Amino acid sequence: MRLSPTHPRYRSLVVRAGLARACRSGVVVPEGLIAHGRGEAFDYLLGERTRPGARRAERAAAEWLRAARHPVLSVNGNVAALAAREVAALACAVPGLSVEVNLFHRTPARARRIAGVLRAAGVDPVLGVRPTARLSGLPSDRARVDRRGIFSADLCLVPLEDGDRAEALRARGQRVISIDLNPLSRTSRAADLPIVDELTRALRAIAAEAIRLRRRRRPPRWVEFDADRARAEALREIARNLNRAATRRRDAPIRA
Amino acid sequence: MRLSPTHPRYRSLVVRAGLARACRSGVVVPEGLIAHGRGEAFDYLLGERTRPGARRAERAAAEWLRAARHPVLSVNGNVAALAAREVAALACAVPGLSVEVNLFHRTPARARRIAGVLRAAGVDPVLGVRPTARLSGLPSDRARVDRRGIFSADLCLVPLEDGDRAEALRARGQRVISIDLNPLSRTSRAADLPIVDELTRALRAIAAEAIRLRRRRRPPRWVEFDADRARAEALREIARNLNRAATRRRDAPIRA
Repeated sequence: MRLSPTHPRYRSLVVRAGLARACRSGVVVPEGLIAHGRGEAFDYLLGERTRPGARRAERAAAEWLRAARHPVLSVNGNVAALAAREVAALACAVPGLSVEVNLFHRTPARARRIAGVLRAAGVDPVLGVRPTARLSGLPSDRARVDRRGIFSADLCLVPLEDGDRAEALRARGQRVISIDLNPLSRTSRAADLPIVDELTRALRAIAAEAIRLRRRRRPPRWVEFDADRARAEALREIARNLNRAATRRRDAPIRA
Repeated sequence: MRLSPTHPRYRSLVVRAGLARACRSGVVVPEGLIAHGRGEAFDYLLGERTRPGARRAERAAAEWLRAARHPVLSVNGNVAALAAREVAALACAVPGLSVEVNLFHRTPARARRIAGVLRAAGVDPVLGVRPTARLSGLPSDRARVDRRGIFSADLCLVPLEDGDRAEALRARGQRVISIDLNPLSRTSRAADLPIVDELTRALRAIAAEAIRLRRRRRPPRWVEFDADRARAEALREIARNLNRAATRRRDAPIRA
């Protein structure tokens, strides 16, 4: 299918076509496409831009990643398909950050394929292809992790994750940063630091801030973050956008 | 994968698993899964139930379908995968209603497969498998229609459609009833009668109302419907739900 750059939803269409290809090649599972659609809806309602509240969360995330003893970024099929380059750039900007493949729908071939996508983008090493440990209390394959990675991390950055997993990490005393466009999702609600923003925008913003902090030689610190307030802010912003749209007739897109 | 009925999102998970299967068999395309995810997000925000405003729209839709000279229900892959039985039941409740396969991503094999799903559910005849006419001004395969169906219809019921198509039908002077959970979508905005409700709930409600009207021997009539008001109502309802959720801490699901 050819996509016309004049289409009002051109960018969304390009991303969708890329994910559809990634589904055909087995990097993304069908359930991942449905999850992407949910995210799209929330991004649309948020105006498809990084709100000031999300920017604050991204700055705090950069501080936490620098302050952590052993931070790990968890990657699933959607993350690899949507943002492999951004993952590589963040791993470069935060030298202590490990990258681990962690899948709900795991097969050895799929894990290898996703690791290949990450390596091609410059991520090295990629943990989690052959799991060496198990998180207790998680019935899914999400429990299968790398002993040197998620298992021993003090901070996990979990983009586009499922709620069970985020809750299991917190129960183990690990801090969780989520990137999820749905401020009501179980992942967002379980996270210590929920970033309610689109994946590539969030990863780029965190990387840029981490580089800035390093250049200024700021000492690492666990800055405070009010997760409840951040979620409530995002919800109120969507509500405002909708009420504004409701007062227009045959209205323009939500960001206009 | 086994699904546990105790999971808080059990029903969604069952529907998702069914769509994933339909994707593997070629009835649903990957883009259709992403579209389903968008719908899921809006259904969640609407409380996953039929609001009074949607119920009013469904009653009006039943009146319009009875009043039309030649009403046609357009079916794509998602509609066949999600609601083939409901399509058959509606076609039975509204004897004049034709059912036509109409696809954005069309191949002859896929059209036949979708027609097979509909026939297995009791729909007969199924139009649109071999298109015999073309709608002008539509660049996609959506333009390829049946001369006895969408081409000559005075009323089209278009669930889960794309905006281009709904606009093209209106430009031809055909009335459009949409079923789309996103009140801001181009389809909802183009429709004369937008139903903002989940597909199976909407089709069942329209069928039940059509049967009721027939039993009471009500004369067919084009009841008035204020589309702008219906859309604005849905938007305000979502906004109310979100503001309510924002005042809760570590909150419960939106419908609680």
